[in-house]
Amino acid sequence: MSSRGDRLAALVAESELDFLLVTNLVNVRYLTGFTGTNGACVCGPEARIFLTDFRYTQRAKEEVDGWDVVTVADDWLGEIAERLAGKTGFEDDHMSVRTLERLKGKLPEGVEPVAAGGKVEQLRRVKDERELQAIAAASKLADEVWAWSLERGLAGRTERDVAGAAEARIRELGAKPSFPAIVAAGPNGALPHAEPGEREIGRGELVVFDMGAELDGYCSDGTRTFATGEPGEHAREVYGLVQAAQAAALEEVTAGVAGEAVDAVARKAIEAGGHGDRFGHGLGHGVGLEVHEAPRLSHRSEDVLMSGEVVTVEPGVYLPEELGVRIEDLVVVTEGRCRNLSGLPKDLQIVE
Amino acid sequence: MSSRGDRLAALVAESELDFLLVTNLVNVRYLTGFTGTNGACVCGPEARIFLTDFRYTQRAKEEVDGWDVVTVADDWLGEIAERLAGKTGFEDDHMSVRTLERLKGKLPEGVEPVAAGGKVEQLRRVKDERELQAIAAASKLADEVWAWSLERGLAGRTERDVAGAAEARIRELGAKPSFPAIVAAGPNGALPHAEPGEREIGRGELVVFDMGAELDGYCSDGTRTFATGEPGEHAREVYGLVQAAQAAALEEVTAGVAGEAVDAVARKAIEAGGHGDRFGHGLGHGVGLEVHEAPRLSHRSEDVLMSGEVVTVEPGVYLPEELGVRIEDLVVVTEGRCRNLSGLPKDLQIVE
Repeated sequence: MSSRGDRLAALVAESELDFLLVTNLVNVRYLTGFTGTNGACVCGPEARIFLTDFRYTQRAKEEVDGWDVVTVADDWLGEIAERLAGKTGFEDDHMSVRTLERLKGKLPEGVEPVAAGGKVEQLRRVKDERELQAIAAASKLADEVWAWSLERGLAGRTERDVAGAAEARIRELGAKPSFPAIVAAGPNGALPHAEPGEREIGRGELVVFDMGAELDGYCSDGTRTFATGEPGEHAREVYGLVQAAQAAALEEVTAGVAGEAVDAVARKAIEAGGHGDRFGHGLGHGVGLEVHEAPRLSHRSEDVLMSGEVVTVEPGVYLPEELGVRIEDLVVVTEGRCRNLSGLPKDLQIVE
Repeated sequence: MSSRGDRLAALVAESELDFLLVTNLVNVRYLTGFTGTNGACVCGPEARIFLTDFRYTQRAKEEVDGWDVVTVADDWLGEIAERLAGKTGFEDDHMSVRTLERLKGKLPEGVEPVAAGGKVEQLRRVKDERELQAIAAASKLADEVWAWSLERGLAGRTERDVAGAAEARIRELGAKPSFPAIVAAGPNGALPHAEPGEREIGRGELVVFDMGAELDGYCSDGTRTFATGEPGEHAREVYGLVQAAQAAALEEVTAGVAGEAVDAVARKAIEAGGHGDRFGHGLGHGVGLEVHEAPRLSHRSEDVLMSGEVVTVEPGVYLPEELGVRIEDLVVVTEGRCRNLSGLPKDLQIVE
């Protein structure tokens, strides 16, 4: 596979641009390997320029490969501007209005700034083997933390304690949480974005436990719903419905299928079970350097899945003031059946 | 003191704007108390409108006071746009070029968007009593973590271990790190933004230890430089120079003095000691909901200090490939001498 810089240059040429200025640091990291907090890339037919400041000269030497490293002493936007020419794309979804105005004031004559966000994100969708390994390792680490958490038991502890202990365990294992862990028990499970609170987890409740790890920059994301003792007939029914919807959606995930179509499979299954109005979010999203990235699996998505993408498949049913169920796997899209990176069982687990 | 919304409305009127749209979430939190991840404020002579989405309706009810809460079902920018009129300021230092373009497409006739970033940041500079207490509590917690860290010893551990243990301790005490802790020993101390690495801390070295806690949304920030056994004459000289420069700068901090003037006092002291070219950063910055905020204390600052501001005073000397020294306190600006929130001793401490 050609280098990321070369693939971006091809995309820039295809978009009839002379240059692309990349300022989103996640994109800069993807292109160059740079992990500091100030950097930008200028990419053109012959140009592979990475700019940073004196604080990061040494780190850039160690991390950046295939890009000419420039240390800017003083005039950050001026030094960028003088390296641009012709139709120059910039990341309009990331650059602030003020920064663009200041940049415009420094552009050499003849440079025309063009809104061109999302190009690097497009490259980032399909992961290479090294990236897949990093995401799989992050996912495996999170699986270990779920197992560790269940050994310690859920009932009688507060949501916040369970979530905090899991995050601390992720850090002990050398990673960090890819987002704040969600532990939502009983009626709190019906709030899909509940913050873990001081409520003590009771017996016979469903507990939504959504967690991810970030390792070497790459994220994982997964959810299981556990029961602290027999949760009763109705909870089991809802659980079974979500489990079946998730299984059906996983069957649908393959290269060439629309994100919208995969979402529809899960949504129809949940509608058929009578809870169509209780699945109030999209089915899934891409995961990589960011825990939410392209593509999207939702009824509004225009993305078509490609081999090598990593996406979540996470249907849920949320019954206000009663309970919530969400089951989320992280999978690699292939030409055939998707490869599941989540190693946890999916039949309802009863834990203490 | 009048409410934050009222003070902002006065500032909006003073700027000859009809409305201000606030989209920076830190500013939204300051104005309303809202801690979720999606919210915006519309502020005008009579308008105090807070918008969020369905995920946060409940939380907004609990947290937001003095603003009308609107839950947007679908068209986020459209629902914002229809509440604006006349000359409407927006936060140009925060809003992306793409978002502004989309917003423009939805504005009712006659609405003129005007770049107006920094207004809420201006209000945030002077802290009220509750904010000062929160920052003091965060600073006290960090002081406890330094004491705890020194008890465990520095020599023979890696920088990363010391930093990671301190961050874990901050979390155990119910806060979180306000930024990744810096532990930089020996020659690494000369890199002001070094990431803690696998280097083992030796004996007789200087160790720069920069850390902060975030508690109830408010940050602390502080630095001490310790010695792991007698560091030698030259290190003691440099330490003494930085200590004297810091003491002189602290004397200068009072309401009505320019941030530039305070910086100059420390800079001149370090120049007089022969290391003028080895103090390569500004003297300090404001601290509050963010660990770096207005005002600035540097040779480029145009800020004049006001009573009730909280700022760092942190001169340093960095001798490449040899050592670094930085001493940083967090202080409250008053009409008289500043009130120091950092409780750690400043004479060179020799620790194991």
